[in-house]
Amino acid sequence: MARLVKKFGGTSVGDIGRIRNVAGRIKKAYDEGHEIAVVVSAMAGTTNKLIDFCRDASSLHDAREYDTVVAAGEQITVGLLAICLQEIGVPARSFLGWQVAIKTSSIHGSARIEEIEGAALEQCFKENRVAVVAGFQGIGADGRLTTLGRGGSDTSAVALAAALKADRCDIYTDVDGVYTTDPRIVPLARKLDGITYEEMLEMASLGAKVLQTRSVALAMKYGVRVCVLSSFEDVPGTLVAGEDEIMEQEVVTGIAYTSGEAKVTMVSVKDRPGKVAQIFAPLAATNINVDMIVQNISGDGASTDVTFTVPEEDLKRAVQVMEANKESIRYDHLLFDDNVVKLSVIGVGMRSHAGVAQLMFDTLADKGINIDVISTSEIKISVLIQADYTELAVRALHTAYGLDADKA
Amino acid sequence: MARLVKKFGGTSVGDIGRIRNVAGRIKKAYDEGHEIAVVVSAMAGTTNKLIDFCRDASSLHDAREYDTVVAAGEQITVGLLAICLQEIGVPARSFLGWQVAIKTSSIHGSARIEEIEGAALEQCFKENRVAVVAGFQGIGADGRLTTLGRGGSDTSAVALAAALKADRCDIYTDVDGVYTTDPRIVPLARKLDGITYEEMLEMASLGAKVLQTRSVALAMKYGVRVCVLSSFEDVPGTLVAGEDEIMEQEVVTGIAYTSGEAKVTMVSVKDRPGKVAQIFAPLAATNINVDMIVQNISGDGASTDVTFTVPEEDLKRAVQVMEANKESIRYDHLLFDDNVVKLSVIGVGMRSHAGVAQLMFDTLADKGINIDVISTSEIKISVLIQADYTELAVRALHTAYGLDADKA
Repeated sequence: MARLVKKFGGTSVGDIGRIRNVAGRIKKAYDEGHEIAVVVSAMAGTTNKLIDFCRDASSLHDAREYDTVVAAGEQITVGLLAICLQEIGVPARSFLGWQVAIKTSSIHGSARIEEIEGAALEQCFKENRVAVVAGFQGIGADGRLTTLGRGGSDTSAVALAAALKADRCDIYTDVDGVYTTDPRIVPLARKLDGITYEEMLEMASLGAKVLQTRSVALAMKYGVRVCVLSSFEDVPGTLVAGEDEIMEQEVVTGIAYTSGEAKVTMVSVKDRPGKVAQIFAPLAATNINVDMIVQNISGDGASTDVTFTVPEEDLKRAVQVMEANKESIRYDHLLFDDNVVKLSVIGVGMRSHAGVAQLMFDTLADKGINIDVISTSEIKISVLIQADYTELAVRALHTAYGLDADKA
Repeated sequence: MARLVKKFGGTSVGDIGRIRNVAGRIKKAYDEGHEIAVVVSAMAGTTNKLIDFCRDASSLHDAREYDTVVAAGEQITVGLLAICLQEIGVPARSFLGWQVAIKTSSIHGSARIEEIEGAALEQCFKENRVAVVAGFQGIGADGRLTTLGRGGSDTSAVALAAALKADRCDIYTDVDGVYTTDPRIVPLARKLDGITYEEMLEMASLGAKVLQTRSVALAMKYGVRVCVLSSFEDVPGTLVAGEDEIMEQEVVTGIAYTSGEAKVTMVSVKDRPGKVAQIFAPLAATNINVDMIVQNISGDGASTDVTFTVPEEDLKRAVQVMEANKESIRYDHLLFDDNVVKLSVIGVGMRSHAGVAQLMFDTLADKGINIDVISTSEIKISVLIQADYTELAVRALHTAYGLDADKA
């Protein structure tokens, strides 16, 4: 007997037929004798409709009222799933966020879970019932409903698994696991049996969007074993866990890419102490997220070029901020390019293997692909290249690192 | 400055445009300096959709889960109305039933309000804010959401008005008041300026469905002055209040009719003590509501005919029950007729006026309409007639009692 948290997203509970299907999957686990808490999202489309209502009502709506409106979505699903479970003979009851209670900060619209009281759910397990918990929502110290922000149900599930000391947190999605890279680009991409939290964090934030980054970080913090599974097919998924549990052969686990990046270069910045802080302070102040930063010493030694990347949608604002601060920063002129993509090779194995970066550079060079910017961490190497080369580069790297599946 | 509770039904908040319209009406009252609690229903169609979901999920759904699902409807509306009020400069906040708290019995699906804690709303008034309260819902002693059953928002509003000692409870509907009879049948029907609780109770339960019966009974019990108003036009409505406040000229206030009645006659029931109890006990046990009851002594003095009415939809069950108990009740045979209508003449004035019933009988006789059953109370006379004569009878009585409006 294990204690399991199972999370189903909006597509998996999109209509009554699908909710019934979810109930059937839960029954199977229940009949095996497991203690089960199910976390569900709103039915697909519901949250967007409710958000549209709020926007129609006012472009500057009170986030507390927004949370009240939007939290209705998960409330509907928990009741319906509990009914469908009872219908097939599985004792179940629904819990809204405040009924659990899932206590959050009062930052409405993007609250953080602060504490989960487990007593009511423990009681539910004791009565041999399945607990159906509304994801995405909680209650603030002010006694008002809160929501965790987009994708928050993953976070709810992992936080609940941590609070309940669950043996595993199963996240059911519309993909059947985590792949070595995007299968739409590389048909030979392989589904991974396992991946470490660190690798998953890099994969998730880099575009292999299967799990919400926050939920992976939370899982890592509390050591929650997370399994990514298909909600439609009954096939094994991918386990996200600590390094001790994950036994991958390859040095590199996956190749990720992120489009929607833009590159800004400040040419001939006068070099002096504290300069970098002066460049990035105004960007931080306007809430623009800077990712890669590279500085090249220029010929004369007295000035340098500084290149950094920002999300494409922030490029215009970033350029405005930079130009407004031209006097104080002292640079010659700006160059920018939003036709770039960030390519990353990820794997905890590279810590103990030399030559991983070299293979990346060689592979790209072989294909005649120019590298604009390089940045590395302990478990990943990222480069910025021209967007047109994305597919070519991803495929070449996938093969080079031995990730291709055996042809059937 | 007055303290007002204002209730808007599903049609009045059917879309964002209409919710904005409601916000505008509230702003007017707020700007006049009143303390306001608004009670709202779910957006038109929402409750039915949620009920359908529950039925689709299971024909025998858990009422606690049903309540959780259905209560989401009002939750959406309160948040949206609060947003629309803030948008036009009216400080407002939403309250779910459990946040008020509106404490109810735990009879899920048709809970009764047991207690309303007023402190949170008093605080809201103190902060000069409009309180937007979810109608139809509350919280049971088990900490789970409850709903009050169909039309429950009227009851929520009146109960809130009683708890807050409000000066008036305004119920906004899609009609602009209470009429002397159904204007679809009698074009000369007049809108009443005022009507007593007792009369309104008779009108409401007899088919002039403007206010939910439960809410009128509650208003009477706590002396809450209720005003029925149009949510679309800005015209005076009808005040429902105690007899001391209502000054109507006529002896009769209105003519009501109820179709959907069925008549059952048990022929030749052996007369003996306790017989009536024996007849109606099995009907009560199967939850069939018996309305009018008449007993005629037959010629021989040893047996009688007993006639009673039940809701049309219960006729089949009533007949089954009666036939199953034929042995113990001892009667000859059953007659039944579902083509009947109950016609009522209502008015507190008839207490002090003679000849009111006689005028009814004379008027119907003049038109050649046969009376099947008669039943009277202090403030109403009801007769059962064949349904085909409904319009003819209502029009004749409306004229006979001097209720016709002056022709323009």
